[in-house]
Amino acid sequence: MDERIRRHAEILAGWSGRVEPGDRVIVNVSPETQELAVALADELGDRGAIPTFLYGDAEVRRAYLQAHDGDFDPAEQERALYESADLYLSLGGSRNRAALSDVDPETRRSYRTSQQAVREALRDLDTMSTTHPTRALAQRAGMSFEGYQDFVYNAILRDWESIAEEMSQLKTLIDDGDEIRIRNERSDLTMDISDRTAVNSCASVAYDSGNLPSGEVYTAPAATEGEIVFDFPMTVNGQRVENVRFVIEDNTVVEAEAETGESAVTEVLATDEGARRIGELGIGMNRGIDRITDSIAFDEKMAESVHLAVGRAYDECLPEGERGNQSAIHQDFIADMSGDSALLIDGELVQANGTFRWEEGFES
Amino acid sequence: MDERIRRHAEILAGWSGRVEPGDRVIVNVSPETQELAVALADELGDRGAIPTFLYGDAEVRRAYLQAHDGDFDPAEQERALYESADLYLSLGGSRNRAALSDVDPETRRSYRTSQQAVREALRDLDTMSTTHPTRALAQRAGMSFEGYQDFVYNAILRDWESIAEEMSQLKTLIDDGDEIRIRNERSDLTMDISDRTAVNSCASVAYDSGNLPSGEVYTAPAATEGEIVFDFPMTVNGQRVENVRFVIEDNTVVEAEAETGESAVTEVLATDEGARRIGELGIGMNRGIDRITDSIAFDEKMAESVHLAVGRAYDECLPEGERGNQSAIHQDFIADMSGDSALLIDGELVQANGTFRWEEGFES
Repeated sequence: MDERIRRHAEILAGWSGRVEPGDRVIVNVSPETQELAVALADELGDRGAIPTFLYGDAEVRRAYLQAHDGDFDPAEQERALYESADLYLSLGGSRNRAALSDVDPETRRSYRTSQQAVREALRDLDTMSTTHPTRALAQRAGMSFEGYQDFVYNAILRDWESIAEEMSQLKTLIDDGDEIRIRNERSDLTMDISDRTAVNSCASVAYDSGNLPSGEVYTAPAATEGEIVFDFPMTVNGQRVENVRFVIEDNTVVEAEAETGESAVTEVLATDEGARRIGELGIGMNRGIDRITDSIAFDEKMAESVHLAVGRAYDECLPEGERGNQSAIHQDFIADMSGDSALLIDGELVQANGTFRWEEGFES
Repeated sequence: MDERIRRHAEILAGWSGRVEPGDRVIVNVSPETQELAVALADELGDRGAIPTFLYGDAEVRRAYLQAHDGDFDPAEQERALYESADLYLSLGGSRNRAALSDVDPETRRSYRTSQQAVREALRDLDTMSTTHPTRALAQRAGMSFEGYQDFVYNAILRDWESIAEEMSQLKTLIDDGDEIRIRNERSDLTMDISDRTAVNSCASVAYDSGNLPSGEVYTAPAATEGEIVFDFPMTVNGQRVENVRFVIEDNTVVEAEAETGESAVTEVLATDEGARRIGELGIGMNRGIDRITDSIAFDEKMAESVHLAVGRAYDECLPEGERGNQSAIHQDFIADMSGDSALLIDGELVQANGTFRWEEGFES
């Protein structure tokens, strides 16, 4: 077995999952993630945990959904399983990202709705999702399999403790600050964060951060003014979009255009009332991610990038009792901060040209 | 997909599992049984069942057991899952039958003991085990993969309703009868079955028969006298045994020898007090099984064979309140009834030279 799979499993059970003796752990395995499941089973045995392995296979799901009349009952047995467990670990790694593409969207929606109570039971657990590199994901990233494996492990096999420490510095600045300004060659935004809290998303249940890899600090701005161009391409509802540009007033997108795929952007913004409002500012800090692979789980964590999301805001960023922006969507867009750029909090330079002030090479 | 996989899934969900709308079904999937899982998901969707798929992988199990200190806690979350379900379907089909061979037997025993409560919760469900043909199983059977697929589907894809009807004739004769006599060129046994019930094991939860394929009628004799040679070779505790011969008095094996592997037989009989006593008589009736493949799930169901087991008797064969033979083991041995042979109940010929009296070609 590739030694990196063992190290991945060690981080997943240790830093990320904080698995202790006697912990009841549900592991979701797909056909392509067998090796990671074996390595993880080794870690769970070593830690004296009690695992149950679920089989998550998109082809099995497709067959079930295709054959069903569409009037779904909730999976009570799965709810009972989750209610009796402590931790849920999901090993992502697809053989074919399009495996469900020919299932009627209405059937998928109806199934999703029927599983609401099951998902809520799952939400009461600590959960952690990770990615095992597969050929299908390499293909989507436009990379060779070996190249993609290197990319994924470079993002995951990091010194998370030191990343968490570094990110806590930025979190403190945001928690204590009143205003963030983000500026680069094509963008200039000002955001009110006076009563907002930031999340140190460092890939651990101990930090309420449920993805491995992670590496971003995010919050939910109270007000945003200015304009921004999102330099990095991505896929939005199946359509390629490039160089999206927003003009934002009073936290609302008042103008939106894109060099490519503008209609996909326009559609997203028209979803509902909250879909034009800014739900999130995220600051990427994972220096193991050095390229865009059209996977938001990686792209938005890339160092020297910031992302804004329109739509739903995260409660944990808001003052007690405040209901943040509500929407059925949460769509991220990512801007490049590696060139001539600045990130300021209350007028003080925190990041210049992609380098934070606590990093080597910082020049104000 | 091989059309036979679809028919297998249809029998499994229909005749065997009797799946109804709203049934909560646990399906245990292994890496090699993915195609059968897809076909079964289709059947379960069509029938409006609510499935949960578990991942049963011997390599994952091995990693967990190897790494654990051996002091296992029961899997409470799995118990909760089983307690909330209606049916458990196990899709057997190994990649490597020896995958657990280097796990310390003491660890395996300790793990097994710790899972007692979980297994009991499982026993309260309807359960059904089946076999998906794999290359590893073909190898163990000494067959090509294609040849083995033909063999397995020939055993499984049968008209179970008509088999059940045929077997019910034999069950009635045993239920009403007082004595069975089994005779062939090397054997002559007399068994008291006066207050015994037979099980019509026709691969359906509706008949309390939990294996697909099945095809045997079995009971627990009260007394057995005589001698028998078991013509078919098999593997007992990892050792090949051939031509085992028992002399039986008062339902107890008083003499045992074998042309090959006698020590394995002697060891089994020495397990505990009940291990020398006859726990079962089974009569194979599946005409889709025409050869021995060293897999008891198939071998003992073969038409024109009978098998005796030493050790544990099945409660469902005993009169209310009677405690049958108790033992930690239940070891089957199989004799050939295809040659010059006779099976008589209360002196009446029921099977001659392998042919039952209700079958074409029967000659008394």
